Amino acid sequence: MREVFKNELNALADDLVTMTTKAADAVEKASRALETNDLDLAEAVIDGDAAIDNLQRHVDQQAAQILALQAPVAHDLRVVISALKMSVAIERMGDLARHIASLVRIRHPQPAVPAAFADTFVLMGRSAARIGHALQQLLDNPGLDSVPTITAIDEELDEQHLRVFSMISELDSSEITPSQIADVTLLSRYYERFGDQCVNVSQRVEYLLTGSWEPELSANDAAEQRTEPRH
Amino acid sequence: MREVFKNELNALADDLVTMTTKAADAVEKASRALETNDLDLAEAVIDGDAAIDNLQRHVDQQAAQILALQAPVAHDLRVVISALKMSVAIERMGDLARHIASLVRIRHPQPAVPAAFADTFVLMGRSAARIGHALQQLLDNPGLDSVPTITAIDEELDEQHLRVFSMISELDSSEITPSQIADVTLLSRYYERFGDQCVNVSQRVEYLLTGSWEPELSANDAAEQRTEPRH
Repeated sequence: MREVFKNELNALADDLVTMTTKAADAVEKASRALETNDLDLAEAVIDGDAAIDNLQRHVDQQAAQILALQAPVAHDLRVVISALKMSVAIERMGDLARHIASLVRIRHPQPAVPAAFADTFVLMGRSAARIGHALQQLLDNPGLDSVPTITAIDEELDEQHLRVFSMISELDSSEITPSQIADVTLLSRYYERFGDQCVNVSQRVEYLLTGSWEPELSANDAAEQRTEPRH
Repeated sequence: MREVFKNELNALADDLVTMTTKAADAVEKASRALETNDLDLAEAVIDGDAAIDNLQRHVDQQAAQILALQAPVAHDLRVVISALKMSVAIERMGDLARHIASLVRIRHPQPAVPAAFADTFVLMGRSAARIGHALQQLLDNPGLDSVPTITAIDEELDEQHLRVFSMISELDSSEITPSQIADVTLLSRYYERFGDQCVNVSQRVEYLLTGSWEPELSANDAAEQRTEPRH
């Protein structure tokens, strides 16, 4: 979406791209930490989240400055408002990656994911890393090529999330402890929400590039509701 | 916080107050639906969420118009930026109330909460309704009297949330099905997040009123991390 951020808006775009890269890397590393029960990697993700929070602060400060000093209108104004909204969603992606890493740390040296769910979470981790990097592509490059990819991966995550619930419902309660069920429930939720936040940001970019401006949407909402009826 | 929204900003304040009132009512009704297994009430909450989404859209449109037509600076600009951020959090409060109501609908005619957790969720429902209405108070009235109340109730919700996990870990798996454990895990998470969003908004109001402007914070983050170490 570089072309929507002209001149003064470029620094804002850089920070959003950097935030997204960090959040995508964080979910990829958190997933690897989950898969391999790697405490050091989990700690690195947890510690790294502060950098994403700082970038959000920086985006918001820059946006405020642009509004104060340049009083942008029309398209540029929409870009700045969108940046203020996107920063919330991308910061949240970082939090969700951190939550996954925290669960690895809490359960260590036990693995956070019981064996029966290991394969499913490997897939969720890969989907999350892919959707994060697709969002980074979208923000870093002109054009909307990545939008269908983002939508498709979000659907994968939703299906995987529903699959976790159906696996839970079919469990024999002797195979798994109650705390393990709570853990996989939350982990699955974190991945599903990570996907929703990516869709949320991508729809904002789409609105900006196509001009179909919709100051608030419930992309996020719609994405989440798909998984609601059954759970 | 009426006094921070002078003149043209009043309509923005009105919408934020109305959104918060609706979200607080929604969580109160969703909790009553959960307690009494009332399907009609659950449906009402689910249907009512669209009104909160519409208000968010309206807040964002008004904010964009104020920025475009009046190019506010200093305090007024911070108010408008804050409104854009608050609307995200309050809309999310509505979603969380809807999720609670959806679970009532999904499980009906079975109760969504197993007997062992009934009392805990009655308490969480009351805390959530109280924190929602305290936030409404804060937004509707000048002064920061409600801030300590909001912080205290959020701590209650965090404790209740941790209590749910400790109850889960002490369960005998014959007492509860795996799906019921997943349900209480998510329900508890929804309540805890509802509290976090209230803290997030209240801290923004506090920054505006005390002048300690901090364009982005991680109020939300900090509130959530408190419940992270143990779960």
